[in-house]
Amino acid sequence: MTSKDLTNTPFLQACRCEPADHVPVWFMRQAGRSLPEYRALRKEGSILDAIKKPDVSAEITMQPIRRYGVDAAILYSDIIVPIHAVGFGVDIQPGVGPVTENPFRSTGDLQRLRELDPIQDTPYVLETIKICVEQLDIPLIGFAGGPFTIASYLIEGGPSRTYQETKRLMFENPELWAKLMDRLTQICTSSLLSQIDAGVSAVQLFDSWVGALSPSQYIRFVFPWVEKMFKEISSTGVPKIHFGVVTGELLQLMSEVGADVVGVDWRVPLDLARDRIGGEKALQGNLDPAILGAPWPVIQDEVLTILKLNDGHPGHIFNLGHGVTPNVNPEVLERIVQLVHQFRVNQ
Amino acid sequence: MTSKDLTNTPFLQACRCEPADHVPVWFMRQAGRSLPEYRALRKEGSILDAIKKPDVSAEITMQPIRRYGVDAAILYSDIIVPIHAVGFGVDIQPGVGPVTENPFRSTGDLQRLRELDPIQDTPYVLETIKICVEQLDIPLIGFAGGPFTIASYLIEGGPSRTYQETKRLMFENPELWAKLMDRLTQICTSSLLSQIDAGVSAVQLFDSWVGALSPSQYIRFVFPWVEKMFKEISSTGVPKIHFGVVTGELLQLMSEVGADVVGVDWRVPLDLARDRIGGEKALQGNLDPAILGAPWPVIQDEVLTILKLNDGHPGHIFNLGHGVTPNVNPEVLERIVQLVHQFRVNQ
Repeated sequence: MTSKDLTNTPFLQACRCEPADHVPVWFMRQAGRSLPEYRALRKEGSILDAIKKPDVSAEITMQPIRRYGVDAAILYSDIIVPIHAVGFGVDIQPGVGPVTENPFRSTGDLQRLRELDPIQDTPYVLETIKICVEQLDIPLIGFAGGPFTIASYLIEGGPSRTYQETKRLMFENPELWAKLMDRLTQICTSSLLSQIDAGVSAVQLFDSWVGALSPSQYIRFVFPWVEKMFKEISSTGVPKIHFGVVTGELLQLMSEVGADVVGVDWRVPLDLARDRIGGEKALQGNLDPAILGAPWPVIQDEVLTILKLNDGHPGHIFNLGHGVTPNVNPEVLERIVQLVHQFRVNQ
Repeated sequence: MTSKDLTNTPFLQACRCEPADHVPVWFMRQAGRSLPEYRALRKEGSILDAIKKPDVSAEITMQPIRRYGVDAAILYSDIIVPIHAVGFGVDIQPGVGPVTENPFRSTGDLQRLRELDPIQDTPYVLETIKICVEQLDIPLIGFAGGPFTIASYLIEGGPSRTYQETKRLMFENPELWAKLMDRLTQICTSSLLSQIDAGVSAVQLFDSWVGALSPSQYIRFVFPWVEKMFKEISSTGVPKIHFGVVTGELLQLMSEVGADVVGVDWRVPLDLARDRIGGEKALQGNLDPAILGAPWPVIQDEVLTILKLNDGHPGHIFNLGHGVTPNVNPEVLERIVQLVHQFRVNQ
C-alpha cells in the first residue's frame, strides 16, 4: 500500500462533487488497444496471459499515463478475469470478445461458479495494482464487470445483440437467475474489495450491456444485487463509478442503486443526464468514441459542447461515452486531455 | 388499386389518433422468419430472389394475416431492395444481414447510386402490393429503410456496432454525406410513393439504427433529409410511421420531422415516450421481443402493462419494440393478438 495522499487530486475531488483545479479526464480502454507501445509489448500472446504477468500489466496500465497526462489510471485487466479464475471455462476470442463453449443454462452450471478467493485466484491482479500504485501520482481505478453483463456472456455463450437467452432464463426461472446473480455478486464484490485492499483509489462497475433491459426489468432482475454490492463496498469509502451504454432510461436507477458517479454514453446530452440523476451525484462522460477519427475541429467542438453542457458542476469527470476503439490515433486523445485541462467555465 | 374503403379500420383510426373498437396490433417482421409455412414456401433460395416473385412475396405477406388476425399486413420485402435494384452491389448474407463488398467511401461511389425508377427497377414490389391489396380486408403497410440506416450499410459494408466509418464520413466530408443522403432520400421517397400508388394504406420508415446518433448528430446529419421525404409523401395523405431502436433521446425529433406515428422500442416506458412526443401523435410499440420465449403469464403481464401505460390514448398501435426473431413460437403471437383485442381501458 502506498502512503501517498491522493484525496485532493482532481479525479477524486470530482467523484465527491468538490471543485478542482481543472476538469479531470481519463478514457475508458485507455490502457491497451490503440497504443503502438502496447502492441509492441503484448505481441501475439492472449490478453488473459498478459493480465497474468504483473510486470507486463503494470507497464500497460502506465503507458497511457505517460503519453496522455490523464487524471486517473485504470488497471489493465478484463471483466472476465475473476470468472475465468474460478474455472467457469470462458475465454477471450480476438475480434469477438468473451466466449464460452458451454453456456450457463441450468442449476448444474452453478457448480462451475464457485466463490472467488481473490488472493488465491487472482494474485496477479493484486500484484499489478501494487506495482502501479508504487509508480503513480494519480488515482488508480479498479473494476469489475456488472453481474448482468457477466451473466449475459455466460448464458449467451458470447456477445449478443438481443440477450434472448438471458431474458428467457430470467423470466422462465427467476430462482435460478437469483442464484446466478448471488454467485456473480459475491465474485464481483470480493474482487472489488481485494482491489481496494491492494490500493486502488476508486472502482468502476462496468455493467456495459445492461441497457438492453427496460427499467422494470432492471428493477426486478439487477437492482437488488448491484445495491448489495455497492453497500458492501461503501464501507471502504472509495468512490464507485457505474457505467453502461444505452442506459438513457436507466440513469436514475443506476444512480439510486448506490453509485457515486454515473457514466453516461454519448446518446444523452449531459444536461439531460443531470436532470435524470440529480445534482448530488457526479457524472462521467460523454464524448462519442466513433467521432475520434473526425477532423480535430469537429472533436474540439464536441468536447467543448460537453464541457459547456456540464455548466460548471464540480461533479464531472470527462471521458468517452464508451471505450477507445483500436484504430484511434493516440495524438487525438492527447489533444483532448489538453483541451479539457485548459477549459474554464466562463470560457 | 382496390376500391375497398379501409379508412375506418382500427389500424388507420389509431394512426390518426381516433378512437377504434379495439387497440390495433401487428408485429414488425410478422411476415417471414418465424413461420413454418414461410420456411416451407421459401426453402433454400435467397431472400432477394423470393422478393422478386410477386406470387411468393404476396403469399408470405398473407401468411401471418391468416394465422394471427392482426390489424395490418406488412409487405414482405427488404429495406435494401431499392438499393440492390439500382445496382449498387449489395446482398443479404444469411445470418448476417445486408453486406457490400465495395463499401461507399468516396465521391466516385455516387455513380453506383443512380436514381430509382420504381416501375422499371422494382416492378415486382408493385405487383406484390397489387396482389395483396386484392386479397386483404385490412390495411397493407409499405416501407423503406431510413437514409441513415441504408447509408450505414453502404459505408460500413455490413452491420456495425460502432458506425465509426459512417460517422467519420459525416464529419470529415459533410458535402459528400449530403450528396449521399440526397441520393438515398430520392430513392426512398420514390420507392414509398410508388408503393402508395400501388395501393398501400400506410408507410413505415425503418431508420432502425439511427439511435447510434446523439440528438445533435441527428439534427445535423439526418433530420433535413427525412423531413424532405415526409413532406413529399404527405400530399398522398397516407399515415407515416417512423421507427428505430435505442431512440429514447430522439423520439421528439423523430416525431417533429414529420411522422404521424412514432415507433418506440421496449426500453422507454410508453407513458414516458408520450411525454417526450406529446399527445397529438400516435405511438407504436413496445413489447420486448426478447421475452417472447418466456412463459405466457410473463408475456401477458408485460402486454397488459403496456396497454395500461397507454392509459386509453386512442393513438396507440400495439407492436413489438423490434422485429420478431426467427425462433419465436407463432402461437405466442396469436395469443398476444387476442389479448390486445380483448383489452378495454377500464379493465
